[in-house]
Amino acid sequence: MDVTLAGGIGVVASLIGLAFAIYQGNFVLSQPAGNETMQRIAKAIQRGAQAFLRREYTAVTVFVIVVAIILFILSNVAGSGISSWTALAFLLGALASGIAGYVGMYIAVRANVRTTQAASESLNKGLRVAFSGGTVMGTTVVSLALLGVSVLFVLFLNQLGDAATAASALAGFGFGGTSIAIFARVGGGIYTKAADVGADLVGKTEAGIPEDDPRNPATIADNVGDNVGDVAGMGSDLFESYASSIIAAISLATLGAGVASDSVSAQIFPLLVAASGVIIGILATFLVQTQEGATQEMLLGSLRRGTYSASVAVAVVVVLLTMLLELPFEIAIATISGLAGGVAIGYFTEYFTAASYGPTKALSQSAEGGAGIVIIRGLALGMMSTLAPVIIVVLVTLIATWATGLYGVAVAAVGMLATLGITLATDAYGPVADNAGGIAEMSDLPDEVRDRTDALDSLGNTTAATGKGFAIGSAAMTALALSAAFITALGLDAGGEAVVISEILLSPTLITGLFIGALLPYIFSALTMVAVGNAAQDIVMEVRRQFKEIPGIMEGKNDPDYETCVAISTNSAIRQMLLPGIIAVAVPVVLAILTVVGRGNALSHFVDEYTLVGVLMGSLVSAFMLAVMMANAGGAWDNAKKYIESGQFGGKGSDAHKAAVVGDTVGDPFKDTSGPSLNILLKLLAIVSLVIAPMIANPTAAAPLDTTTDTAIEQTIDETATVEEEVVATDTAEEVTEEVTEEAAEDEAAAEATEDADVDVTPEATEEG
Amino acid sequence: MDVTLAGGIGVVASLIGLAFAIYQGNFVLSQPAGNETMQRIAKAIQRGAQAFLRREYTAVTVFVIVVAIILFILSNVAGSGISSWTALAFLLGALASGIAGYVGMYIAVRANVRTTQAASESLNKGLRVAFSGGTVMGTTVVSLALLGVSVLFVLFLNQLGDAATAASALAGFGFGGTSIAIFARVGGGIYTKAADVGADLVGKTEAGIPEDDPRNPATIADNVGDNVGDVAGMGSDLFESYASSIIAAISLATLGAGVASDSVSAQIFPLLVAASGVIIGILATFLVQTQEGATQEMLLGSLRRGTYSASVAVAVVVVLLTMLLELPFEIAIATISGLAGGVAIGYFTEYFTAASYGPTKALSQSAEGGAGIVIIRGLALGMMSTLAPVIIVVLVTLIATWATGLYGVAVAAVGMLATLGITLATDAYGPVADNAGGIAEMSDLPDEVRDRTDALDSLGNTTAATGKGFAIGSAAMTALALSAAFITALGLDAGGEAVVISEILLSPTLITGLFIGALLPYIFSALTMVAVGNAAQDIVMEVRRQFKEIPGIMEGKNDPDYETCVAISTNSAIRQMLLPGIIAVAVPVVLAILTVVGRGNALSHFVDEYTLVGVLMGSLVSAFMLAVMMANAGGAWDNAKKYIESGQFGGKGSDAHKAAVVGDTVGDPFKDTSGPSLNILLKLLAIVSLVIAPMIANPTAAAPLDTTTDTAIEQTIDETATVEEEVVATDTAEEVTEEVTEEAAEDEAAAEATEDADVDVTPEATEEG
Repeated sequence: MDVTLAGGIGVVASLIGLAFAIYQGNFVLSQPAGNETMQRIAKAIQRGAQAFLRREYTAVTVFVIVVAIILFILSNVAGSGISSWTALAFLLGALASGIAGYVGMYIAVRANVRTTQAASESLNKGLRVAFSGGTVMGTTVVSLALLGVSVLFVLFLNQLGDAATAASALAGFGFGGTSIAIFARVGGGIYTKAADVGADLVGKTEAGIPEDDPRNPATIADNVGDNVGDVAGMGSDLFESYASSIIAAISLATLGAGVASDSVSAQIFPLLVAASGVIIGILATFLVQTQEGATQEMLLGSLRRGTYSASVAVAVVVVLLTMLLELPFEIAIATISGLAGGVAIGYFTEYFTAASYGPTKALSQSAEGGAGIVIIRGLALGMMSTLAPVIIVVLVTLIATWATGLYGVAVAAVGMLATLGITLATDAYGPVADNAGGIAEMSDLPDEVRDRTDALDSLGNTTAATGKGFAIGSAAMTALALSAAFITALGLDAGGEAVVISEILLSPTLITGLFIGALLPYIFSALTMVAVGNAAQDIVMEVRRQFKEIPGIMEGKNDPDYETCVAISTNSAIRQMLLPGIIAVAVPVVLAILTVVGRGNALSHFVDEYTLVGVLMGSLVSAFMLAVMMANAGGAWDNAKKYIESGQFGGKGSDAHKAAVVGDTVGDPFKDTSGPSLNILLKLLAIVSLVIAPMIANPTAAAPLDTTTDTAIEQTIDETATVEEEVVATDTAEEVTEEVTEEAAEDEAAAEATEDADVDVTPEATEEG
Repeated sequence: MDVTLAGGIGVVASLIGLAFAIYQGNFVLSQPAGNETMQRIAKAIQRGAQAFLRREYTAVTVFVIVVAIILFILSNVAGSGISSWTALAFLLGALASGIAGYVGMYIAVRANVRTTQAASESLNKGLRVAFSGGTVMGTTVVSLALLGVSVLFVLFLNQLGDAATAASALAGFGFGGTSIAIFARVGGGIYTKAADVGADLVGKTEAGIPEDDPRNPATIADNVGDNVGDVAGMGSDLFESYASSIIAAISLATLGAGVASDSVSAQIFPLLVAASGVIIGILATFLVQTQEGATQEMLLGSLRRGTYSASVAVAVVVVLLTMLLELPFEIAIATISGLAGGVAIGYFTEYFTAASYGPTKALSQSAEGGAGIVIIRGLALGMMSTLAPVIIVVLVTLIATWATGLYGVAVAAVGMLATLGITLATDAYGPVADNAGGIAEMSDLPDEVRDRTDALDSLGNTTAATGKGFAIGSAAMTALALSAAFITALGLDAGGEAVVISEILLSPTLITGLFIGALLPYIFSALTMVAVGNAAQDIVMEVRRQFKEIPGIMEGKNDPDYETCVAISTNSAIRQMLLPGIIAVAVPVVLAILTVVGRGNALSHFVDEYTLVGVLMGSLVSAFMLAVMMANAGGAWDNAKKYIESGQFGGKGSDAHKAAVVGDTVGDPFKDTSGPSLNILLKLLAIVSLVIAPMIANPTAAAPLDTTTDTAIEQTIDETATVEEEVVATDTAEEVTEEVTEEAAEDEAAAEATEDADVDVTPEATEEG
């Protein structure tokens, strides 16, 4: 099968996906939208969401255009090595992710009120409408991402001629997706929690009115926030992971990393896995339904039926695909290890965060010891919960690379994300159900409706937690695959000299890069955590102003000015995401520039390619730990609070409850702002590095793994003999002597070493592929 | 100068140090010990400290003997490469650190009451007694560490003949010190906070009696805890850093890493720097004095006069030493960069944690927003505060390696720790002053005495925070130096083959090692945080029991049973430090064993030398971030609470104060248990790896950097030609062909690469030294 055909299959699958999204969207829109009050509230949320998106997309457009221009200029600088197609890919990536976010939000803020209305008929109808709303988002994200990658890869291959350059330009598409994700995930994350905290602080605490009360001017902002964070934010985050994992796999295939036999088949394999995943995801959505009076577990079971069936089906298809493409079976093993890893991470996330398991139960009980204790225990729980995801990522990495080298890591990421269509649908379902509950509350609907929306909402909380775990795990695998593609593309080699590996590992620039990389997530988290507080403060001020200046709000005689609250938190969020966003983009770019500038002078001791490599590796592991810790601690605090509210340990209003509320307050920015934002940091650092890799790639090294010739042995002898002459062309005579002497000396050591064949510490991915 | 002479100088300096410690100890003991009540309370604290030490040393003895036996057996296993002297060095290291801890505690728990008594005369007298008590600890630690290293290095060099093997055996001394540190720092850290939290919970909260009230059965345990944590714990932590940094420098010098000219001078240089530091530290203590009515700033100024003067003097001596030993001036630059880095870290720690600066002021204000907000802000502050230490460590590493390669990192660590005698004296001063206040409180002394002890105590809090920053920074530098020595000792090389560096950096085992390394600090912290809670719970139960079963405690008619509280928290602490301790020791050992077992079979894909390298690097950066974050967040919460108590934002009893108390509760285990414990984890992983390095060192590789010959060029040509023949001796014919072809191909690329001399990505420490 050639690339064009595979690209065609990708396009067809995407179009089917988009058609299905339109069908589901129409289904949702055709549902009754409830009574007038409900529609009025829903309209307010829709306007709020619209306002947020307008503001966000304005900012994003400026950012995207500036970056595209920079990319275009760079691509025209002689020797930069960046293709001018990269800028186009970047624009299209941003556009596709932007559209997916817009569509998802558009439907979600219309599915919410229709879910409320459907829930007044039956639980299953409510589930169906809400889940259909989520499905639109899920399917749109995967379809647009796959469409973009398929079309662009075929186009670039035709235009640029060779696959490696085409794959390099393709990285721009992932970068484009990331640009949206910074704004949607980081900005959206700040927005959603600022609105939540702000609304609570002044509404519940100061004015003493319940949550989702229409008299609270910030209540619409709060409901908008759910969509901004968990629909647009989550969607753009995973759009990027999805597209980037495919791009990384294609890149590594073109670079020959771990692909033994047929490079073309290896390039199209991820496209075909993704295409099958889209179709399977669509089919699996039909398995999601329930019956009246379903318990929480039955509801969860119905969602799981969908996602688990999809996983099994994808595994089968992966095996069939490797047979069809005559690829080694090991590639299937690598892909399925990623798929299984994703499911396992979801499971362990649930274990650590759901009140039905030990850890969160123990956390709830510790609330009896007061706020301090519940914070300590929650942090410890979050820290301990990093164990499972790390073991899973380690196992997946080892199995995948053992099976088929670095390429294995990328296809494992592709495998993990293959069922994203339906996984994301269950995530995006959450805010729809949450909003549905809010609308039921604000419209004073009968208790039985509220009970049903509560059941749907509670299910959404569970899927939100596992969804976060999955998002982090797949972000880590994607970032690892992207980093692998970047480092491979750098083509670092010692210019053929025999090197002492210990010295490479101890390069000061590598080590300091690791430190800087490990530092970035801490700075990023500190900034985003503080941002939530600042933005919340802005809302509090505005709500207080409205209570004072608009007469009759508290008596329900006058509507509060919802839109100003939305506007204030939007502006505050966008403003405060700039610094962390700029840091993430600037670090790799600045390091790359310093690397190029420093070549051949003393600066190169302080910054070189290894610095950036170190930064990627350091940030990968550091951000992964921190993100898992924050997400799981936050999830556990949230559920511990709810568990106590359900009547345990004194129930609502008890001292334990008060302590648990403190935990939840800390957990909110942990799980919805800072934690998820780290996903973006991880991937952003890696994809920016990959995009600019041609700029700093070792200009003299031959393409790695691509240099095997048969008659090389005789040549080597000749060349070694002439090394001395050639080296004379270098800068100083002193350096020359040193180099030659060392090289010769190490060759001597080498010859001794080859006598003992037991030791082969060089990792040789190709041999194992 | 030869090694024996330098060792002699080290011994003389140590003996002078010990004589000074005895002199100071006698001075302290000769001071009046106050009235009968004071003496009774002091006796109880002394007995408690004694009980803790007895229990701890019993456990430690078992541990040390078992490990010594294992080391001895290992050293007799053929091919392990571990010298049988290692076991002896280990025993002596444990003994020396144990003695230093015992002496420090012995004097500290006698200096406390004498400080109280002296403070009833004048502030300066109080400062002098308390600081003299701290000086005993500081001087004993550096003297015994230097004595051990000096004597053993000379001895091993004579017995084993070559410097590299001697240095390798010397690593056992550092490991011995670490064994004490696990128990003293981790166990002690758990003890001190469990006692503190336990005493507060049941005393202040339940019984409503003030802190340090003699009716509280846990109050003695609490006062013992201050000494256990900040005297014995801090001392053993820094004993290890101090000894290990010297050992790492000697090791790297013998391995030739970054040492261009005279290896012997490079080996003795760290010994002489340390010896000068001991003497300078003694002289500088005489600068520490103040006058009556001194403000907080004047008190701090008097301590700073001592430490800063010592730093300047050491810098001068370092320059003189390099001239005397005819070493390159760059070595002085590296050493002084470390010295300056230590001072800078101390400064920034103070900036982030002291209420006189912006960050902690802002944190205090945020307490008005409630407990949740103060936790979020505190965590953000801690995260942000990692910026400065990372930049400092990065700069020191880059400058030191630029100056003189990896050896530079080790001498930078030696430089940072050169003034440890007096730095540690200011740390150990803290608990003495704290206890002095407690005794004044419990003995109902007049207000003016309490005011003086409060002033001394408050100064101790500042030095405790900066001391923690310094301990973490020096632990990181020491661990880096040890890791460098370990990785260099591994002698990883590709058997002379030209390798693609990108592939080494992307070794799956290296990457998974990084993940596991980054994980360990999280697990370690989770375990220690939970341990504090559990141990505190045990104390609470005991105190409640005593209140119920012993009549008349609350009326002051009957003494509570202090000793049972001490015993319970001691046992609980020792029991709960086992798991984290075992994890830290076991991880490198298990990985080393799997590496050896896996050689030549499929297991080597999953675990090899790179795994352990990755674990060291990953844990280094991850633990450093987490430790700084925890220590500084904890320090800032503590001081924010005190700032509010001083009357700001509503003062004591206000809502802001309540919120700040929650922050402090979280901060206590952060700054006194989990954070400092990470120092031990870091160094333990590295020193255990260094000790067992001979076991897994590349058995066929030539000693790195030691193979330069002049006539090598011709030889290389011959050898390349014969590679084919020699390689035939390896396992399978297929492998041979692949290897040879690849090698040849890469040589070809190499020859091309040498034409362009601009690109030199190989870090060549020697060239720059």
